[in-house]
Amino acid sequence: MGGDHGTHVTVPAALKFLKAHPEVNVVLVGLQDAIEAELKARHAKTGPRLRIHHASEVVAMDEPPQLALKNKKDSSMRVAINLVKSGEAHACVSAGNTGALMATARFVLKTLAGIERPAIAKLMPTMRGTSCVLDLGANVDCSPEQLYQFAVMGSALYGALNHNERPSVGLLNIGSEDIKGNETVKAAGELLKASRLNFYGNVEGNDIYKGTVDVVVCDGFTGNVALKTSEGLAKMLTEFLKEEFFKSWWRKLIAVVAMPVLMSFRHRMDTRRYNGASLLGLRGIVVKSHGGADKLAFYYAMEQALEEASSGVLSKISETMSGHAAASADPLEI
Amino acid sequence: MGGDHGTHVTVPAALKFLKAHPEVNVVLVGLQDAIEAELKARHAKTGPRLRIHHASEVVAMDEPPQLALKNKKDSSMRVAINLVKSGEAHACVSAGNTGALMATARFVLKTLAGIERPAIAKLMPTMRGTSCVLDLGANVDCSPEQLYQFAVMGSALYGALNHNERPSVGLLNIGSEDIKGNETVKAAGELLKASRLNFYGNVEGNDIYKGTVDVVVCDGFTGNVALKTSEGLAKMLTEFLKEEFFKSWWRKLIAVVAMPVLMSFRHRMDTRRYNGASLLGLRGIVVKSHGGADKLAFYYAMEQALEEASSGVLSKISETMSGHAAASADPLEI
Repeated sequence: MGGDHGTHVTVPAALKFLKAHPEVNVVLVGLQDAIEAELKARHAKTGPRLRIHHASEVVAMDEPPQLALKNKKDSSMRVAINLVKSGEAHACVSAGNTGALMATARFVLKTLAGIERPAIAKLMPTMRGTSCVLDLGANVDCSPEQLYQFAVMGSALYGALNHNERPSVGLLNIGSEDIKGNETVKAAGELLKASRLNFYGNVEGNDIYKGTVDVVVCDGFTGNVALKTSEGLAKMLTEFLKEEFFKSWWRKLIAVVAMPVLMSFRHRMDTRRYNGASLLGLRGIVVKSHGGADKLAFYYAMEQALEEASSGVLSKISETMSGHAAASADPLEI
Repeated sequence: MGGDHGTHVTVPAALKFLKAHPEVNVVLVGLQDAIEAELKARHAKTGPRLRIHHASEVVAMDEPPQLALKNKKDSSMRVAINLVKSGEAHACVSAGNTGALMATARFVLKTLAGIERPAIAKLMPTMRGTSCVLDLGANVDCSPEQLYQFAVMGSALYGALNHNERPSVGLLNIGSEDIKGNETVKAAGELLKASRLNFYGNVEGNDIYKGTVDVVVCDGFTGNVALKTSEGLAKMLTEFLKEEFFKSWWRKLIAVVAMPVLMSFRHRMDTRRYNGASLLGLRGIVVKSHGGADKLAFYYAMEQALEEASSGVLSKISETMSGHAAASADPLEI
């Protein structure tokens, strides 16, 4: 039900997803009437692979998370997360209110052992492939221990999705030297150095897109600013490029000739392909789609959920965390 | 002497600057022999508008700022800043070690009344023109009062350069609502609301390039990450665009046809034009050029210094700060 377009986006995306993945079933959670109307408009029907699970309430995009959690016990996002909790669903995908989704997921699913707080993680395109960046906004202030936990979570996600046993981890900072940054980041660096993770060291903002490391760890404030600044810059550059090609009839003609190149460039930097953000650290898989996502973008968020569900990322996090606990208990082993 | 290319960049940039601004004189500060050799190679001579001021030491790009400050009293950056202090020069431009430049400038020039710490400010291109963003890395941890002072400094700089009496100020945050962000940012928001500045409210990362406000205020950690992330993304996108145009001989042909458009796009997003970063809040004008700057980029940093020196930005900051002090002393006036 969530996002700027509700079922107009989520339902067609689900139909596309069902076609692409014949081994997966989909449960549409929300207002039965709205979902049925959307299905009908798309000439689609429920069946063994597609069912509707009614939920009588909807969390508004601007609703305070704590109020949504307290008052809307039959909201679509709450019910969908309940399905994950009960094991009826392997993952939940939502385009709804991020804060409410995080608060509800945390309340219903709880965090994995050793994880204090979940984080929002995303795969971002880089010059060398993709990197996982977290936290992107769930935790404004983070302790060094939390940043370490993010590193464990990000490594597990990146490793599971890319079949990489030891992804490299970088700590986002404002210089590569150990002495740079604030006290929290410095202490997190020490924890990471002493850990069994493949810690590269400090990285800077430009390293995200350079692809210097597989996993970039930062607090949610910094990560959110980096992500949104990137969105803004990409939009501005696309706009400028378009403007340059529309300045005269002659240039428009050139644009027509260059169209195939421009289109493949556009496809390559299409942020819709990187839409799914994982709520990591929970005892269940929850993927957040951008609220403004269109059908294709929401489809990619569902793909992200499927990949996570198939790759055993949760057990990977638990393993590392329990290994960490064992290591801490036995100082000789460090 | 500073930057990755030393006099090979600074000297030709200075020569270009002298030609473009017949009303301005330039003092080249550094190792006399190196500067003379570079001038000779460029068939240029010293004269009434161009003189050399010898300084026997050079601060290395990776030298710890405090050591440079303590041990290199005759470094080119120290001597250049001394010239600003004594009034012999109206501004200092350096491509050298940022930390050392900041530490030296702060030690020699001192901060303006009411300003606790200087900040690094830069004009960034936006969809609506330019915005001033600060701090970009001088202050890792900032108090709400310091963020307020950055807002005063940024407003003065933007206002002076753009002849705008009341530039709008945004506080960089991870959501537009007042309740978002950490305690420091929330408290800074309260200070800004109560101030005489034209405070817009919270802005997010994407607002920087949208040009939502004239001045964007943040701590140096966040600002540095936003700036460097932008650099990385712009580089990646340019690289991708180039790759797309080089994929086949047919596409290369299209690139030739589209060249005028691509070149004007490139010019428009040319970061060299935004190279100068101001060390704001000092009793003197110091502009930092990117260490990797080429001749044109360093030239633009000199332009930035000239504009600052001609626009009375320092007295503007002092005025606002003394107005603020008066307002604080008289509660009825707020």
